[in-house]
Amino acid sequence: MNEIVKPKAAPVPRATDTTLTREYYVSQEVFEREVEKVFFRQWSFAGHVSQIPNVGDYFLHSYVGESIIVVREGPETVRAHFNVCRHRGSQLTRADQGNVKRLTCPYHQWTYELSGQLKRAPMMPDAECIDYDKLALRSASVEIWAGMIFVNLSASPEQTLIEALGQPPEGLLKLEPENLKEICRDRMVVGANWKTLLENYLECYHCAGSHPELGVAFDIQASYEQTGSWGGNCFIGGEPVRKGFVTVSMTGELVSKPLGLHAGDGTLELEVTEGLGLLPVLTRVLFHIDHAIIHVMNPISVNEVEWTTRWYVRSDAVEGVDYDPERVAEVWRATNREDKELCERNYKGVLSRTFTPGPLNPRAEGALRPVLDLYLQLIE
Amino acid sequence: MNEIVKPKAAPVPRATDTTLTREYYVSQEVFEREVEKVFFRQWSFAGHVSQIPNVGDYFLHSYVGESIIVVREGPETVRAHFNVCRHRGSQLTRADQGNVKRLTCPYHQWTYELSGQLKRAPMMPDAECIDYDKLALRSASVEIWAGMIFVNLSASPEQTLIEALGQPPEGLLKLEPENLKEICRDRMVVGANWKTLLENYLECYHCAGSHPELGVAFDIQASYEQTGSWGGNCFIGGEPVRKGFVTVSMTGELVSKPLGLHAGDGTLELEVTEGLGLLPVLTRVLFHIDHAIIHVMNPISVNEVEWTTRWYVRSDAVEGVDYDPERVAEVWRATNREDKELCERNYKGVLSRTFTPGPLNPRAEGALRPVLDLYLQLIE
Amino acid sequence: MNEIVKPKAAPVPRATDTTLTREYYVSQEVFEREVEKVFFRQWSFAGHVSQIPNVGDYFLHSYVGESIIVVREGPETVRAHFNVCRHRGSQLTRADQGNVKRLTCPYHQWTYELSGQLKRAPMMPDAECIDYDKLALRSASVEIWAGMIFVNLSASPEQTLIEALGQPPEGLLKLEPENLKEICRDRMVVGANWKTLLENYLECYHCAGSHPELGVAFDIQASYEQTGSWGGNCFIGGEPVRKGFVTVSMTGELVSKPLGLHAGDGTLELEVTEGLGLLPVLTRVLFHIDHAIIHVMNPISVNEVEWTTRWYVRSDAVEGVDYDPERVAEVWRATNREDKELCERNYKGVLSRTFTPGPLNPRAEGALRPVLDLYLQLIE
Repeated sequence: MNEIVKPKAAPVPRATDTTLTREYYVSQEVFEREVEKVFFRQWSFAGHVSQIPNVGDYFLHSYVGESIIVVREGPETVRAHFNVCRHRGSQLTRADQGNVKRLTCPYHQWTYELSGQLKRAPMMPDAECIDYDKLALRSASVEIWAGMIFVNLSASPEQTLIEALGQPPEGLLKLEPENLKEICRDRMVVGANWKTLLENYLECYHCAGSHPELGVAFDIQASYEQTGSWGGNCFIGGEPVRKGFVTVSMTGELVSKPLGLHAGDGTLELEVTEGLGLLPVLTRVLFHIDHAIIHVMNPISVNEVEWTTRWYVRSDAVEGVDYDPERVAEVWRATNREDKELCERNYKGVLSRTFTPGPLNPRAEGALRPVLDLYLQLIE
Repeated sequence: MNEIVKPKAAPVPRATDTTLTREYYVSQEVFEREVEKVFFRQWSFAGHVSQIPNVGDYFLHSYVGESIIVVREGPETVRAHFNVCRHRGSQLTRADQGNVKRLTCPYHQWTYELSGQLKRAPMMPDAECIDYDKLALRSASVEIWAGMIFVNLSASPEQTLIEALGQPPEGLLKLEPENLKEICRDRMVVGANWKTLLENYLECYHCAGSHPELGVAFDIQASYEQTGSWGGNCFIGGEPVRKGFVTVSMTGELVSKPLGLHAGDGTLELEVTEGLGLLPVLTRVLFHIDHAIIHVMNPISVNEVEWTTRWYVRSDAVEGVDYDPERVAEVWRATNREDKELCERNYKGVLSRTFTPGPLNPRAEGALRPVLDLYLQLIE
Repeated sequence: MNEIVKPKAAPVPRATDTTLTREYYVSQEVFEREVEKVFFRQWSFAGHVSQIPNVGDYFLHSYVGESIIVVREGPETVRAHFNVCRHRGSQLTRADQGNVKRLTCPYHQWTYELSGQLKRAPMMPDAECIDYDKLALRSASVEIWAGMIFVNLSASPEQTLIEALGQPPEGLLKLEPENLKEICRDRMVVGANWKTLLENYLECYHCAGSHPELGVAFDIQASYEQTGSWGGNCFIGGEPVRKGFVTVSMTGELVSKPLGLHAGDGTLELEVTEGLGLLPVLTRVLFHIDHAIIHVMNPISVNEVEWTTRWYVRSDAVEGVDYDPERVAEVWRATNREDKELCERNYKGVLSRTFTPGPLNPRAEGALRPVLDLYLQLIE
């Protein structure tokens, strides 16, 4: 396990920042404000293009209680429709994924094109009984960058995805993120406010004491240092691996074939750690030389947040030959389990009527306050 | 399955009506207003006289969270008392049914006559310690029409049952509704607002696509047409059976002995379909030549409604000889199961923050808006 | 079972008191007011000194959703700290009991002395980064009387424990309450408002009809009479046992060795029934010649209250030789089970929108109104 090394000479900065007051973590009213001001306005990872290669392929994306149909309309077009019929509101589909020519509501057979356009309402002809043009499915915004599908619940977001990303991590493109396949997905519901889980992710002050697996695979001191640059609604960069390690694994050895341009590369560059993060509701994309990890946070209620981790390898890697899913997922699966325990215990304390936020460690928790300030700005 | 036949020549009416805005289906505050303004003011079916033939017979009636003791006080008198002791409020009885001489609270043995009058409070003699006359059980209103017991939670309803029924379906009396026995009762809790379930019942636009069994047994086109006359807090009429069918069954053949004056009738009249409905919280009474069905809706919370269906045959019919309960219940049991699925799926969509009500089909959903208007009038 | 004997000559007093209106038992808002005005201001039993004989011994005390670490700091000092780290709020410990040198938060290893003083925050040196003196654990108040540990969630209670007790029952000291051991603990969650359970305890009007075991072991008539003296936030006295009985048991015979100075006493005094009660959230301490019972009420939510009963015998009594835990617990275990049923049934009735409080029996429910008045005074 890594020792936390205190820099020798640097003066100790005075701690002045804290997390938020109790109200923000426990109030139903605050949560409802967040739905409107935060959750309906932010880009969040929904899935990968490999899930919907063909026209008509779709998957359901659940986010803050909303059900979204992410569907391939054409070779170059993907749509994100709210799963709500424009007639009486019935959900159009419950299957997690599938392929359809059109979307037909099972209640009264109203039928929509993949574009969302109303195609047919039985016994209610267009232009005579109703105007089909005014009854298209309501849509969220969807954009794809490097094979990754992002959704924003707003129909007219303040920023495009690219604007939100700022300077997208170009180095990541060499890893060909579009040529991946998902090999594993873990979902867990954490019994805590989503901001408690967010804060947990934003610092590694707790890592040495609680994450033996991360301690093996990562360079925790470098992690500390980089969080200082986080802030704004996007940050760029991966998690630095331990010196001498090629990737995130318990041995430091590859757990799958190198990605993209690195395939067949005899002289692997070390420290290929690319990634990005979207805030304040965290989407965290992490690329290493041989696999990628995407974490997504989904607030369910004031005291529950879903945390989903997906693992990807290159699409032509063969299970059992090139990779073993257990080994690929090992480090973060253990870490997630540990974080769930930490966050639920933290939240139990926050629920105490005596809780007041204490001082943050300026050397290791520097990323929290800028993100919380961003959050406050959004909801005020 | 019946095809929905679109009338050839009729001009297509413009759809102008919609259901209600999301707030009405999801707001706790609206639900509480409904308790006061609707649920405590409306007549609803509670049971059949055959359940309480003898003095002292009682059954518990649950409605919107209230427990009501419906008890036969005398040969001609039935009472409906709130199951709440006037001393400290304990429930007097938990047994679903039984026979009692008096009602004794198990907590402190306060004892009430079947009329509700306080008879004895141990150690608290009448006129000395307390006035027994002021401590009778609180009562709901109860009326019986044609053997059917209806309850109104108000002690002084604005309308008597007969006033509420308007023109009671006299044709129904030939079927001798008082000479029935209950052979089957299904309860289900639907995870939806009660008005979502109501709307589902008020239209058959969805029937062809979702109810194969109703499609066999009913004349869906005729059903469409009759709903046009619904409105007000009561409507008269049954559900028309398919041409050539004698009753509601999967084969169209009798599933029990003909009721009332039709017994031994060699030349059965076809299309004996009598019935009535009470609104907006639906009680639906359906009589066919050989059996009766009574559906009752019981709102439990803003997102749960209980739906109970009872099946009746003539009281002297013999199970295994004259009827098989499975065959009697077959059509509606399947239909209820299908409707539960449809309504829960509909309600999931209504919960979306993007839901807005769409246009109703003027030809097939004509009964919804008048009933919703009645509802709005009651709660405003 | 005891007959309730109505005094022959006494005039019957007029009943004028009632319990509270429905709002007080069902309102979430009232519950929150109670947290502040009642639950955070009252002394309540938390445990016995025998649970923490050595320095560093601790146990967790749960009360109205708060978790409190009751820990022995020194031979003469016991502390009660809120189980909430002053850094980000994490719970420090989840183990129900244990022994520690210091309290270390598992999240970021902040470490506190048993006194609550912050000892070390990794990477955050005292006086440089933060002021340790300002970051001691928040504490509740704790006091010990006769070996019994009482906690008040307020850091500065309006009354000391001794002031709250008024005239502590000195007779109880002869029984050496500090020389006890707990042999049995029952917890149950009653689905009722805590005041419904309180009212149940405050009267024995219901005992004859509902508690056959109490009827065997107690002198119910004497119980009636003594409740008249209850009131204020403390009352003194035990529950009088049946004439001819030596202790509370189904046979009236000893169920363990006599306590304290009575050990080896050939001529046992009858009617050693000492005790005290703290109000309005009830702690009830009952001592008999050979064992003690302590009941504690813990409000969990507006419609749930935890009721914990602990049984104690003298610390040198040997299980299987001097006592059988089943026999010691028998009477109150059965009584608790019966009271749970009564209270839940009572609360179901109180939930009826038609509930209004009725007249209290001035002869047998005389203790209710003074206690309810005390409660009203506290929350207004």
